[in-house]
Amino acid sequence: MPDVGARVWVVPGGHIPFPSNGPEPAFTSFDEICVLNASDTRADAQLWFYYEDAEPVGPYAIVVDARRVRHVRVNDLIDPEAVRLDRPYGCLLRSPVPVVVQFLRQDTRLPGVVALAATMAHPA
Amino acid sequence: MPDVGARVWVVPGGHIPFPSNGPEPAFTSFDEICVLNASDTRADAQLWFYYEDAEPVGPYAIVVDARRVRHVRVNDLIDPEAVRLDRPYGCLLRSPVPVVVQFLRQDTRLPGVVALAATMAHPA
Amino acid sequence: MPDVGARVWVVPGGHIPFPSNGPEPAFTSFDEICVLNASDTRADAQLWFYYEDAEPVGPYAIVVDARRVRHVRVNDLIDPEAVRLDRPYGCLLRSPVPVVVQFLRQDTRLPGVVALAATMAHPA
Amino acid sequence: MPDVGARVWVVPGGHIPFPSNGPEPAFTSFDEICVLNASDTRADAQLWFYYEDAEPVGPYAIVVDARRVRHVRVNDLIDPEAVRLDRPYGCLLRSPVPVVVQFLRQDTRLPGVVALAATMAHPA
Repeated sequence: MPDVGARVWVVPGGHIPFPSNGPEPAFTSFDEICVLNASDTRADAQLWFYYEDAEPVGPYAIVVDARRVRHVRVNDLIDPEAVRLDRPYGCLLRSPVPVVVQFLRQDTRLPGVVALAATMAHPA
Repeated sequence: MPDVGARVWVVPGGHIPFPSNGPEPAFTSFDEICVLNASDTRADAQLWFYYEDAEPVGPYAIVVDARRVRHVRVNDLIDPEAVRLDRPYGCLLRSPVPVVVQFLRQDTRLPGVVALAATMAHPA
Repeated sequence: MPDVGARVWVVPGGHIPFPSNGPEPAFTSFDEICVLNASDTRADAQLWFYYEDAEPVGPYAIVVDARRVRHVRVNDLIDPEAVRLDRPYGCLLRSPVPVVVQFLRQDTRLPGVVALAATMAHPA
Repeated sequence: MPDVGARVWVVPGGHIPFPSNGPEPAFTSFDEICVLNASDTRADAQLWFYYEDAEPVGPYAIVVDARRVRHVRVNDLIDPEAVRLDRPYGCLLRSPVPVVVQFLRQDTRLPGVVALAATMAHPA
């Protein structure tokens, strides 16, 4: 399998919806970063978060083993600090190994309703 | 018509929603891989599935005839093994002929509600 | 303004939802092709539709004047033939002038609910 | 950090949903342009709006500071003129500094329902 993807990916439109309705974790409102590493080398990737009114925060360590996928809910990231709910952000992923990155949002702010949005991240 | 598309496409963010509500098959929760083959050659494509905790599984044979489109629900793939519902995955399509690939999700986990998400796959 | 975009664009995942609920035309279920022509030349574009079980149908004439956008509901195309509702398709747009193409779906099959999906088309 | 992104981005499928239901501003129907500037230089970007039946309107000034993100609701743009609700448009962003641009729509036309759509803009 040849290397597929890129080493830098960008998602400008992050914003974890708040609050949530329905059973956790299936119906929690979330933003999610999905990474596929098709290579035979473990990817020790790093995420950086950009804000409207503060310096970037990171790195957040994201490990994706060889020939594996990882779906990381931004809500679950806590080190070096939690990403606040309901705050506009963007993020940038760097990986020493080429990977492919997709962004997904689930919005359950309204009871009995789920909304989804998805886009491939931009390979930079 | 010149060749359009690429021979390798990647979708990192797969996850078939579960359960479904409403009449089958129109309202079944699904992930779908849509392939357009604009060429004059039949495309014997292969899908590989990547997981968080297991080696990739495949190939799944996806045939797209010349000048045809195919919309494959991931739920319907069973050979070499079914893709489990409600399990994170990513997938990679290889085709000997250039094709174009789009990803679509339909989520009917909640009664009386449908959510959609779509993105072009990443051409690698 | 330099030329922006490409001359060939592909959307593999077409499928006009059926039926619709709510006032027309705002809440009609639709697939839509959105074309932006930033150039100073009128774009006489052509759309071709690909199916799972039949030869491609076209061309459908799509005129986008210089420095204009056009949002074309696939439901409204009738020449050379109507695109059937609830039938899987893909489409390919060719333009003599570089343009940019986006795909949008609105799904109102369920009363009191609207679902949306969007993706940029693939520039080929 | 190397420069990431492009200097021209295009979104053909704009159309601010109207009306809105639910508390403002969280549940206002909107189209949003999300810009990430990973560089160390402030980006004085400009937005131009394209219509089906009128000449382009702009520039709208969009400032994105170094290492910052900005999420701009199209509803909130008023200079040189407001973008009318429920009117098809496309837009083009130009930036002297490479940035990355994503498009997001929130549709709350129906009471008790939210629909989302997202796509990366096209880098031209």
